Amino acid sequence: MNLRDTFDVPAPAIVLAEGEFGKKGGKTANGVVTHSEVFDVRGIVDSETAGQTPADVLEKRDAPDVPIVECVDDALDIAPEAEALVIGVAPAGGQLPDAWVGDIEDALRHGCDVVSGLHYFLGDDERWSRLADEHDARIHDVRKPPDEDALRVGDGSVDDVDADVVLTLGTDCAVGKRTTTFELYRAAREAGLNAGWVATGQTGIMVGAHEGVVVDRVPADFTGGVVEDMVKSVGADHDLVFVEGQASLTHRAYSSVTLGVLHGSWPDTVVLADDPRRTRRTHFDRFGVDGVEKEAELVESLSDAVVAAVSTWGDPETERDRHDLPTANVYDEGGAEDLLRAVRGELPEIPRETAGGEA
Amino acid sequence: MNLRDTFDVPAPAIVLAEGEFGKKGGKTANGVVTHSEVFDVRGIVDSETAGQTPADVLEKRDAPDVPIVECVDDALDIAPEAEALVIGVAPAGGQLPDAWVGDIEDALRHGCDVVSGLHYFLGDDERWSRLADEHDARIHDVRKPPDEDALRVGDGSVDDVDADVVLTLGTDCAVGKRTTTFELYRAAREAGLNAGWVATGQTGIMVGAHEGVVVDRVPADFTGGVVEDMVKSVGADHDLVFVEGQASLTHRAYSSVTLGVLHGSWPDTVVLADDPRRTRRTHFDRFGVDGVEKEAELVESLSDAVVAAVSTWGDPETERDRHDLPTANVYDEGGAEDLLRAVRGELPEIPRETAGGEA
Repeated sequence: MNLRDTFDVPAPAIVLAEGEFGKKGGKTANGVVTHSEVFDVRGIVDSETAGQTPADVLEKRDAPDVPIVECVDDALDIAPEAEALVIGVAPAGGQLPDAWVGDIEDALRHGCDVVSGLHYFLGDDERWSRLADEHDARIHDVRKPPDEDALRVGDGSVDDVDADVVLTLGTDCAVGKRTTTFELYRAAREAGLNAGWVATGQTGIMVGAHEGVVVDRVPADFTGGVVEDMVKSVGADHDLVFVEGQASLTHRAYSSVTLGVLHGSWPDTVVLADDPRRTRRTHFDRFGVDGVEKEAELVESLSDAVVAAVSTWGDPETERDRHDLPTANVYDEGGAEDLLRAVRGELPEIPRETAGGEA
Repeated sequence: MNLRDTFDVPAPAIVLAEGEFGKKGGKTANGVVTHSEVFDVRGIVDSETAGQTPADVLEKRDAPDVPIVECVDDALDIAPEAEALVIGVAPAGGQLPDAWVGDIEDALRHGCDVVSGLHYFLGDDERWSRLADEHDARIHDVRKPPDEDALRVGDGSVDDVDADVVLTLGTDCAVGKRTTTFELYRAAREAGLNAGWVATGQTGIMVGAHEGVVVDRVPADFTGGVVEDMVKSVGADHDLVFVEGQASLTHRAYSSVTLGVLHGSWPDTVVLADDPRRTRRTHFDRFGVDGVEKEAELVESLSDAVVAAVSTWGDPETERDRHDLPTANVYDEGGAEDLLRAVRGELPEIPRETAGGEA
């Protein structure tokens, strides 16, 4: 899925973040507000933080100054030009709350497309698809896997891609893989490189990856093939392709997705995202975190890639000494640029510069 | 899925192996004919080998002496007591050939259940489900994944299972993992152990695994969880659980399934199936085979399991010297018993003997 080609980018949009804006459960909403290249967010719906500013809620001074309001109707009053409602949180308990039903109806009646990361596919429900049709709006269920007959197993054809491929993996879930991938991509563009990126989760698709599929929904046999297809597609017109990885090779709950992405993208270099304070896995207290050295050893044993750098949530100086790998924190000024420098140092041919940026 | 509890075992059955009996494409049919514990095969349908004997076609002197005939109608004449038609081949090109349509109709009209390994689910097609209902027959689509709401991600709860878990992995696809798993199970039963087994592919389900799911059809996120659930279920009433693995950790097309099975079953010991003559991967000429040492190193790095033995298609003496691991060929007399001995040597507590067999 590629929302860049679906909208006139950037499209004015409203983000539904009810009850979760600024929290972990709202990470898709938070990401879309702070750095979507597809959507220009004009209103945020969250009754719990309504009236505050994104800078306060996200604790980020440079967060865009967008009003936070109680409901979609209020947001449409402020931003009648909105072309999309982006659902950036999952409802607690999995059922669509009544309030959201009204919010989604209001958006569709206004002619807004609905971009949904819900597990439940709105477009498959006649109630929503009919309402969308009536108002000339579209529903984009970003978690929906490609049709079965478009799926195939990996075949190694990604090896023929001319572009250099950089995959972000990590030592756990929710450790900054998507942010690292995006920041590397941004730094590469700013350095004048012809870079694109591939998302493997919903937030990445919503913030504007050049291709994206929520790979954990794809039948296991096809994980590698679907990633391979995306890398080939983005690699066809970019010199450098950044790929968002998932989970960790040592994460017993999700490792099969991780290895599918590694083998499907068959990267030249890997960047490992890590939170040095974490000892147990997020949501899985039973599982310990194995750490950077173990993950790096496995990546290099399971592929031809070189682990080029660590993207840390800790102090880069301390972590660099611990791991003996180039290390930076992408939330620090210049952090992404440091990572990019380390990555380029490992690439056999430095991608050519297509604009006047510097290496 | 568990066909043991679905039929009065062993159930008289007819196997549809059209065009593929004795060939690689008929491996499900070949397996069901030679060692299903669920079905007692009374007729084989394959117009290409009709009139020959299974011993000749399979080149196995001890293959059961079952008539091979032209069509299901002929088979039903010979074996009117048949309770099931087992579809043990995939049609060339994916479409159901007209001749098979007639064969399936004949079976259902006779009141036979249809056990299908087709990618296309017969039970989802009203044409077939209605005909089955009319004749008091059932359709079992063994490739059908469990319902989405029965799926979950792995959570490590398999660690609480009392039984010892033995997983068969391998250096490639089609290298004897299912046969090795079954032969280990058989040898364990003959040694008086309270053993059960878990299938992860269709043939295993059809030959009588105590639990089975075609895991490559399950959304990638749930591969580990679905295997974990099966091991817990079979482990609840057996001392020893053999698990059929899939593909290989180094197989770029299928590795995500392999790792899901490894992490979901979290075995105590692993047996590696290997064909020493193979240098390129089956169906994937582009990919080289990495071999026993590499696979063993990865298994032990990605889990707490010990690689206990190699199940080889080559000469056990030669291979034992090459790999410095206990090695046997399950097609040799006593081969499975040799493997079982090696496996039991690695288990912390030797499973208790529940019958008068010997260790």
